[in-house]
Amino acid sequence: MSTIDRRIGTARAALGPMTAPSDDDTLLRRYARAIWSTLVEPGDGVAGALVQALGAVRALDVALGDGPVTAPAEEAGVAGAALEAGRARWAPRRGAAAEALAAARRGGVRLVTPEDAAWPQRLDDLGAHAPLCLWVLGDPSRLNPASAVALVGARAATSYGEHVATDLAADSAAAGIAVVSGAAYGIDGAAHRGTLRAAGSTVAVLAGGVDRPYPMGHLDLIDRVAREGVVVSEVPCGSSPTKWRFLARNRLIAALSDATIVVEAGWRSGALNTAHHAAELARPLGAVPGAVTSAASAGCHRLMRELDATCITGGADLRELVGHDPGPGEDALFDAREFTGERTRILDALSTRTARPTADVARRSGFSVADAAALLALLELDGAIERRMDGWRRGAP
Amino acid sequence: MSTIDRRIGTARAALGPMTAPSDDDTLLRRYARAIWSTLVEPGDGVAGALVQALGAVRALDVALGDGPVTAPAEEAGVAGAALEAGRARWAPRRGAAAEALAAARRGGVRLVTPEDAAWPQRLDDLGAHAPLCLWVLGDPSRLNPASAVALVGARAATSYGEHVATDLAADSAAAGIAVVSGAAYGIDGAAHRGTLRAAGSTVAVLAGGVDRPYPMGHLDLIDRVAREGVVVSEVPCGSSPTKWRFLARNRLIAALSDATIVVEAGWRSGALNTAHHAAELARPLGAVPGAVTSAASAGCHRLMRELDATCITGGADLRELVGHDPGPGEDALFDAREFTGERTRILDALSTRTARPTADVARRSGFSVADAAALLALLELDGAIERRMDGWRRGAP
Repeated sequence: MSTIDRRIGTARAALGPMTAPSDDDTLLRRYARAIWSTLVEPGDGVAGALVQALGAVRALDVALGDGPVTAPAEEAGVAGAALEAGRARWAPRRGAAAEALAAARRGGVRLVTPEDAAWPQRLDDLGAHAPLCLWVLGDPSRLNPASAVALVGARAATSYGEHVATDLAADSAAAGIAVVSGAAYGIDGAAHRGTLRAAGSTVAVLAGGVDRPYPMGHLDLIDRVAREGVVVSEVPCGSSPTKWRFLARNRLIAALSDATIVVEAGWRSGALNTAHHAAELARPLGAVPGAVTSAASAGCHRLMRELDATCITGGADLRELVGHDPGPGEDALFDAREFTGERTRILDALSTRTARPTADVARRSGFSVADAAALLALLELDGAIERRMDGWRRGAP
Repeated sequence: MSTIDRRIGTARAALGPMTAPSDDDTLLRRYARAIWSTLVEPGDGVAGALVQALGAVRALDVALGDGPVTAPAEEAGVAGAALEAGRARWAPRRGAAAEALAAARRGGVRLVTPEDAAWPQRLDDLGAHAPLCLWVLGDPSRLNPASAVALVGARAATSYGEHVATDLAADSAAAGIAVVSGAAYGIDGAAHRGTLRAAGSTVAVLAGGVDRPYPMGHLDLIDRVAREGVVVSEVPCGSSPTKWRFLARNRLIAALSDATIVVEAGWRSGALNTAHHAAELARPLGAVPGAVTSAASAGCHRLMRELDATCITGGADLRELVGHDPGPGEDALFDAREFTGERTRILDALSTRTARPTADVARRSGFSVADAAALLALLELDGAIERRMDGWRRGAP
């Protein structure tokens, strides 16, 4: 049995239930990506560049080997020293893959890699910081919806924020826009629940392994999202949700969505980090306003001021942000004519009680007698005023 | 006695108590402007162009004469037909000046024209639509403060809106920024009151004559503004506050201020008209956000979306909008570093309960052993972690 045959056998045994049947090459690439995800912390740019340039299998051989770094580093466009540093940082985790893969098999977790049709194309905008693979509970095809919006916000949400998040989620569901969020307490939870209640599609992106649902109080919610939507993480099973991984996870929430909306956030809320990623990806960013006296809206107002986030007041604004609507019609645009006009001046000069002759109306309105007569005639045609024996009278409003 | 001497005598008798003593030419110009303001409705562009080009005195002769229009129209850059139409529209009000001037004398009203030092230079941006003169109750020098902000909004304000308007007004007063508003119920009233309470300077711009305070329920407030601030209108005494004049008045509120802030406004509130004027004048425009469930904030959110109004959450934002502050310091600017960093990854890998050896910290954090050791040493220097016999322990947060 050759080395390559042994490798294929190992990969097939390790991944068997996690992926669709595939040819040997694809299988080895998937397996290499799965192992890669157990070696790195999310967003490892050196690993990303190496895998992009050499492919996951060769990159893994380089990472775990002890041969010279110069040639592969050059091929991947990273410094030799960076590759050396990478090797040193990946080394402590050699051997972590077996346990992570066993946990995935036990948990019915699926492995999704760029080889799969379900791989979200939206992640490609992350470049070398894209995840090396995704670990998924639920239907992987839901990772790649036609339209998706991230609805995120503070755990310390107010009832106002949860109410708005629920409404926006229901509006998204009705419009066929998938709702991406982070399964946290507060706004995230309201976003997932509002979508499920409206029979929409929702994606929960976790900071730890998908076999370690967090927070514990959302066990039932995450379970329901796994059944009716999809739960996803880039870190392997068994990984705890560290603060660093929450921050890295936020870039995935932004990258999996066409637009990001922060519903409520304090001045230093972690939700602002997600907004920042959306801005870096040049994806539309929205924020829901609230009372300036509410600390839970201070972060939203900050986003409007500092990152030029669009003010989102409801479902129509959300759909426009996602690019799902043609935008406001002529009718909704600002129309100064609402507030001006000769008509107003004539009506101002009339009384509802006593009739006034044309010359009097002209003087009061500041029009010539001829213009006043013409305008009065037009208003009469509109039915707005009445002609009397002794002049003109304004109709009831 | 010559015609010119008779004119001067008439002007001096009519204006005597209303203006500072002045030479005959200035006196005649002021008198002509006072009469002009009794002939036109606010914002009459033909009258404005004529006065700008010919001076108020010659323009008035042309307006009231019946000579050929071609030469003066050409000189003023208006169409001959427009001047003919102007004559026709001004004619019905010939003779209205006497009563208006008598009322002004009775009411202790002052006439302010571009000849006065107190004339607000800010109005010049209105061009041909600038007021021809101002009728003033109170100290005219308060029309021309170093800094001024318009605080406007709906009459149907909520307690939230009135609270924010009062706070913003007090902040403006403390910063030496005059507060301009329209004396209406709701936001306008709160803005004036908040300024007076904080011993600041406030300007009330009325739609009708200053001798006809409106609304009646604000009689005491307007009287107090006249004593401690200044009350102003472009329409002469005796003029009623028509809807048209409210709309025209709004352009003066915007033009008298360095920036305009709408505190609360419904979707079609008249306050949006003031905002529109500020935008047309290219003056900074701000809006105070509120709950998206509050109809009283819908107009503010509309201004953010459609006119790109700046989100105003408090006094600091107001001062920045007015140009009174250097803007946010480095500290206030968005800092992605708040949310990332190697430090976080090391702290994530430590426990507050059990000490962990460097190799374990390296594996958990995804750093090389050497990098982890270096980062741990730095954190130890910061006092954030403790070195123990058996490894590293995180300090209490």
